[in-house]
Amino acid sequence: MGEKQQDDSASAVKKKKETVANLEKLGQRLYDQMEQGEFPWVKMPSRSIENIRYNPDLRQYVLGERFVKRSARNIRHIRPLSQLVWTAFFAHKLSTQRKTSTLRDVYYSAQAYQMSFKDQSESDNVITDLETVIGLAREDFNVFPEERSAIFGDLTIEYNVPGYEGKRMNLTSHPDGLMIGPALTYSEFVKTSADKVFAIEKGGLFTRFVEEKVHEKFNALLVLTAGQAPRATRHFIHRLNKELELPVYIFTDADPWGMHIAMVIISGSANAAHLRDLTTPDAIWSGVWATDIINYDLPSDPLTEIDIKRLHELQRDPRYKDELWQREIKIFLKIRKKAEQEAFSRYGLTYIVDEYLPAKLEETR
Amino acid sequence: MGEKQQDDSASAVKKKKETVANLEKLGQRLYDQMEQGEFPWVKMPSRSIENIRYNPDLRQYVLGERFVKRSARNIRHIRPLSQLVWTAFFAHKLSTQRKTSTLRDVYYSAQAYQMSFKDQSESDNVITDLETVIGLAREDFNVFPEERSAIFGDLTIEYNVPGYEGKRMNLTSHPDGLMIGPALTYSEFVKTSADKVFAIEKGGLFTRFVEEKVHEKFNALLVLTAGQAPRATRHFIHRLNKELELPVYIFTDADPWGMHIAMVIISGSANAAHLRDLTTPDAIWSGVWATDIINYDLPSDPLTEIDIKRLHELQRDPRYKDELWQREIKIFLKIRKKAEQEAFSRYGLTYIVDEYLPAKLEETR
Repeated sequence: MGEKQQDDSASAVKKKKETVANLEKLGQRLYDQMEQGEFPWVKMPSRSIENIRYNPDLRQYVLGERFVKRSARNIRHIRPLSQLVWTAFFAHKLSTQRKTSTLRDVYYSAQAYQMSFKDQSESDNVITDLETVIGLAREDFNVFPEERSAIFGDLTIEYNVPGYEGKRMNLTSHPDGLMIGPALTYSEFVKTSADKVFAIEKGGLFTRFVEEKVHEKFNALLVLTAGQAPRATRHFIHRLNKELELPVYIFTDADPWGMHIAMVIISGSANAAHLRDLTTPDAIWSGVWATDIINYDLPSDPLTEIDIKRLHELQRDPRYKDELWQREIKIFLKIRKKAEQEAFSRYGLTYIVDEYLPAKLEETR
Repeated sequence: MGEKQQDDSASAVKKKKETVANLEKLGQRLYDQMEQGEFPWVKMPSRSIENIRYNPDLRQYVLGERFVKRSARNIRHIRPLSQLVWTAFFAHKLSTQRKTSTLRDVYYSAQAYQMSFKDQSESDNVITDLETVIGLAREDFNVFPEERSAIFGDLTIEYNVPGYEGKRMNLTSHPDGLMIGPALTYSEFVKTSADKVFAIEKGGLFTRFVEEKVHEKFNALLVLTAGQAPRATRHFIHRLNKELELPVYIFTDADPWGMHIAMVIISGSANAAHLRDLTTPDAIWSGVWATDIINYDLPSDPLTEIDIKRLHELQRDPRYKDELWQREIKIFLKIRKKAEQEAFSRYGLTYIVDEYLPAKLEETR
């Protein structure tokens, strides 16, 4: 088992510094404009549907060439511009004071500053504006989702959060898995003996994998996505792939929703077209495929009307143009069946680890 | 800070042994019946609505005096009786081999034994039958829910799961919190300096509490319920209260759904009338109350029709007969408003910790 050692680049700390620097640059720009006698303004790529396109080289959605400008000269812009500037101020405060927050929290916090948002969707939207302007995700300025997923396996990390600086933790320490929250998201990777990552949709299967020592037998880090992976988790998988150069294999239910959990880890969503570092284009959807329902004779349920409608949508989605996806969509539509990861238990609890997992790794490696 | 030291009773290990013993007793009974020339049969309390009543002494729902008998003599009973016996066999296998499973997994596993369930709700129901027969929760025979909640604070536990026997973990080790999965649920409590437990509905607030060092300032263990607390978490809170004698304070959103999250931790659900050790009758709902919306002038939303309907249901629910609950329900119905935990951020991010929390502790202690 070779061990990978990270260099001293300390990517998470670097990113935090970049965030603060970008926020301060934004502030500086506004000051400069005003000193030069200009009404302050901000320019950013438009996030309207017509300006979102799929980039086959980056293998994700990106924003096009259209820009929007918000200027204090325009009376209709004063409100959203002020909101944006307040949000940047608050994000800077969170980042430098090293406190975390949530989308909802930011909405309520605005009231402490007599900054008014008509509802949370307005403040969420301004937070996305800020992401677009500074080119970084809200998690970078400490606005985290409610949902948490988990990780287990031989990776030693070092914390950066207050009170834990320099402390290290090996991610096999707690057999139920460690939550991927703010602290883990921005920890540094110190050392791992793993040579791959398995991302798993369901909690039950994650626990099975831990119990059956998949992390040892397959030399893998196990990530529980708990359904659709939260953005912080997608960023974490991206880091495992990029910084540690670990290939990523994704296991989901065999249905359009499972496929899409895999796809969003691989190619991201249109909503995040203004961001980078949330996707893992080389990650592989290893199953459960429609083909597996046939080949392994899995217990299945009939597709619902909604499932079928969703499959037709995916068929036209540019992210799904590759052969594997098109083939599996066709087979789903042909057999009109779906199956869950747990369906392998019909062959015994450990069949999925003993037989299916090695076979699929061989097939998709 | 006094430290509580557990005696050697090792309650989690004891419970596991009790489970295996109860399952074996059930098997022995069936064998004895057959050896005496009887058709095998099983008797258990009826779980029909008419046999569920609220017990004010136990402060939870319990089953009444009606029993049902399933006998192989009755041709219509052969199928459910066989299913029950197979489920007991499988539960015994899980417990002795120390593997965990989920409701869904059990449903599929049956197929490995040519044991047929027409759908998962049939197998779920038989698992509940088995709980009723042996008087223990499915988590005791290693059938766990998908959902996970989390804990953080100065409690040292000792694992019982294979590969981790005797290993200890302090629950402040990971600042994102440790998942309450199978391993933590059945760990032994070794040592704590905490003198209370805060159960918290929302992930964002849980993280805020960790960051603001509520565990140190208030000498508390922090439990994230992540919405409605999973059964394993309710059992865990019960253990913290019973074994470590820690008072439990519950913080939820100020709406009927938040109230009910608190109530299910306190008094359990009608669905679990056949079980004990899942409730914490002395736990206290400390907020956010309807009263707090008024007293703290919190940002609020209007109650929906569904909220109001739910409040009327709760008003008639025997678990809600006490003064505090009836008063708060009335105030909700009067002001027609609800508020979220995050609403306190209107006074700044730390107001909830610096002002609200000490005030409410004083009020509900």
